[in-house]
Amino acid sequence: MTPAITPGHPRAVQALLHALGAQVVQLPADFGNRQHADASRMACAEPIALLRPVSTAQIAQALRICSEHRQPIVTQGGLTGLSGGACLRGGEIALSMERMRGIESIDMQASTMTVLAGTPLQMVQQAAEAAGAMFPLDLGARGSCSIGGNLATNAGGNRVIKYGMARDQVLDIEVVLPGGQVLGGRHRMIKNNTGYDLRHLFIGSEGTLGVITKAVLKLRPKPTAVSTAFCGVPDFAAVIQLLTRAQSELPAGVSAFEVMWPGYYHFVLERLPHLRAPLARRHAFYLLLESSGADAERQNQAFECFLAKCMADGLLQDAAIAGSDADALAFWAIRDAPGEYQRILPGRVSFDISFAISDVEAAIAHCEAALRERWPKATVLIYGHLGDGNIHIVVQEPDWPAGSMAEVQSVVYGITGQWAGSVSAEHGIGLKRKPVLGLTRSAIEIDVMRAIKRAIDPDNLLNPGKLLDC
Amino acid sequence: MTPAITPGHPRAVQALLHALGAQVVQLPADFGNRQHADASRMACAEPIALLRPVSTAQIAQALRICSEHRQPIVTQGGLTGLSGGACLRGGEIALSMERMRGIESIDMQASTMTVLAGTPLQMVQQAAEAAGAMFPLDLGARGSCSIGGNLATNAGGNRVIKYGMARDQVLDIEVVLPGGQVLGGRHRMIKNNTGYDLRHLFIGSEGTLGVITKAVLKLRPKPTAVSTAFCGVPDFAAVIQLLTRAQSELPAGVSAFEVMWPGYYHFVLERLPHLRAPLARRHAFYLLLESSGADAERQNQAFECFLAKCMADGLLQDAAIAGSDADALAFWAIRDAPGEYQRILPGRVSFDISFAISDVEAAIAHCEAALRERWPKATVLIYGHLGDGNIHIVVQEPDWPAGSMAEVQSVVYGITGQWAGSVSAEHGIGLKRKPVLGLTRSAIEIDVMRAIKRAIDPDNLLNPGKLLDC
Repeated sequence: MTPAITPGHPRAVQALLHALGAQVVQLPADFGNRQHADASRMACAEPIALLRPVSTAQIAQALRICSEHRQPIVTQGGLTGLSGGACLRGGEIALSMERMRGIESIDMQASTMTVLAGTPLQMVQQAAEAAGAMFPLDLGARGSCSIGGNLATNAGGNRVIKYGMARDQVLDIEVVLPGGQVLGGRHRMIKNNTGYDLRHLFIGSEGTLGVITKAVLKLRPKPTAVSTAFCGVPDFAAVIQLLTRAQSELPAGVSAFEVMWPGYYHFVLERLPHLRAPLARRHAFYLLLESSGADAERQNQAFECFLAKCMADGLLQDAAIAGSDADALAFWAIRDAPGEYQRILPGRVSFDISFAISDVEAAIAHCEAALRERWPKATVLIYGHLGDGNIHIVVQEPDWPAGSMAEVQSVVYGITGQWAGSVSAEHGIGLKRKPVLGLTRSAIEIDVMRAIKRAIDPDNLLNPGKLLDC
Repeated sequence: MTPAITPGHPRAVQALLHALGAQVVQLPADFGNRQHADASRMACAEPIALLRPVSTAQIAQALRICSEHRQPIVTQGGLTGLSGGACLRGGEIALSMERMRGIESIDMQASTMTVLAGTPLQMVQQAAEAAGAMFPLDLGARGSCSIGGNLATNAGGNRVIKYGMARDQVLDIEVVLPGGQVLGGRHRMIKNNTGYDLRHLFIGSEGTLGVITKAVLKLRPKPTAVSTAFCGVPDFAAVIQLLTRAQSELPAGVSAFEVMWPGYYHFVLERLPHLRAPLARRHAFYLLLESSGADAERQNQAFECFLAKCMADGLLQDAAIAGSDADALAFWAIRDAPGEYQRILPGRVSFDISFAISDVEAAIAHCEAALRERWPKATVLIYGHLGDGNIHIVVQEPDWPAGSMAEVQSVVYGITGQWAGSVSAEHGIGLKRKPVLGLTRSAIEIDVMRAIKRAIDPDNLLNPGKLLDC
């Protein structure tokens, strides 16, 4: 197929078409209904061209050409990000990783898997499972998000308390630099103290420093026994004590410690009739506790024993233990209700913030009081991965006047900054949280980030204007 | 005390004395027998002045003055490093962290501890223990190494398989930049996706990018049950299978998986009469296996059960289970015999290398064959943290001609490079391994490191010539 180059196209696009062909370089006329925006609901321009490369070599060539023409480029994975990090501001080329997918190799002796960056997370999880292992990173968008996007944003999710964030699942990454040089991706060892850890610099840099093309991932043993309980807790002090005790006393540790404030629990049970209340009475806090390991019989015994001791000590008022996978799924359905927000809570403002665990109660009480005072009729839902200090707040009022949402953000982010919390525990900065980055990172930290960005991408070609202004 | 400034002292030293006084700034005339070299046995010059600050503010002021005078500065912790990273090449000021010691705070709800960088590792461990928790980083030099040095070099040690390297124990660090600006150290949350992870960039940068002055550390639950066994294993395939099965089947996972090749085992038992052989017969490999968690009774049962199954499956030929702390210490004494090398193996060449676990057997066989062919009479000892892919090789021959050591290094590092291994799994690069950095890191990776170094320390004042040449 002959590339349809016309003098009307920018030089960079002409050069890309010439070098890579129309199989890789798509022009706006061919986009059809293709979506370019991510899941942040932020405004997104159309790219001046779309690249769909199939190899690192093609990406390197594309970046070399873009660099020669000072052409900005935005890397796009599964477009499931919530911060506008993959959105276009106008004039960029979009680099889609959708055809860079596949499991390159699995080594069950070394417990490693090498995958192309465009591979969907779920495909990575399934390949690990099929090989008899587990890839523990997990989040709601698993079916459509790509592992490269998970690494670019250092995704979190459900099992951080036991296995860490996306960055903790990685032994090495292959990255294409703005000038087209290719770096890393050959190493599969666990320990490597040879100079600056570039892996951790590129992971979480939201596509502003390089294009992640391949990853060497760590696999974990697949847990064969999972114990789950849904608990009623009398107060926040007990929540904290339960966390400490569960981590120290449960033989297999804690794989989930999800806390729901009562407002959230009652709201979702009322609005979503398919949910069943696991506990008969009302409690100050609700806790979903999970421990996963090996040896089901010994583990379940120890789990029940632990809950009985906590009950005797007054830390728990009630607990329902899952007797089957179906029970466990029913407990998780209560925690996963935010998947239904689009339907039951339109026009909401959502937060993904974190604090030192010992500050959570007071910081959240501060937020809640400030919100209730200013918007007494608003729905305020609070819940989160408490074991990681990560709390989600969702605020909504049906008939808000324009501007209210910005005001809600200013209240919650302001308080987050006062408590030395993070304005983005796991969703990243992108475009959406750029205005509040300075509440968590100091001016000097941002200066150093900018100096690094300039050192690696001096022409500001990769995802310009995201995360930082240069 | 009036500072003894004379016109003979460099301007930077005069300015430092003027600003900080003789309590902080020591001149060579006052050094006495003070040692300036680290444990690498590399040549080390005397500093033109020694700084012994007690606060971050003093360090910031010192770095500002050094920066104004383009005065190079080398930060020194406990001087236990093995790569010459803290040695002086001549003309530098030494910045000792010895008076920056102390535990600033412990928060048992958040499981965090904030410490000054000069605090000895053992003091950190003891403070955690006294508070009812554990700080898991542990290495032989615990009594004299400082936590700041551990972070600057991303130290490894005995429990990496379960808890990770030094970088995995850190929530935030406070760093003074070359110009005297102070960055970080305020955050105690587990999740924080707000831009580039500067923490991971400074950790492991060996004092070339900034001075780590304070750290917010993660504490872990103290294990109340430790099960230990010393095992005889028939072949390397069985070693690997044992690793995989232990990680997946032991309820509390694996906290140590130390493998000793027979040459090492027999050498140390023969040379160190205080050691007792735990097993009656000879085996192809010896394994020290440890699992630590909670609930001693259930755990010990599961541990014995696991070993019995592995025996029945032919993966183990023999196993001695520690029945007491004294037994466990006796097993560990065999693995810890390298502490006696100074006496029993003078003039040795030591390696700290790593590979993908599935490459260890072949890569090590390759090294061993090459060494035996060239030096048939040499003592070659092999052992290591196999669960992390980290192997130590020690080579010695009593009457080596000059130059042999360099030749031994060239053989082992060359083979390490061929197997895509790391020339420094945990000891860092410093001065000693700078010539072989390129065997593990590509030219492009080193270029990016250099660009980062120039962006953060444009005048190359912090630990110049270490890790990288700029």
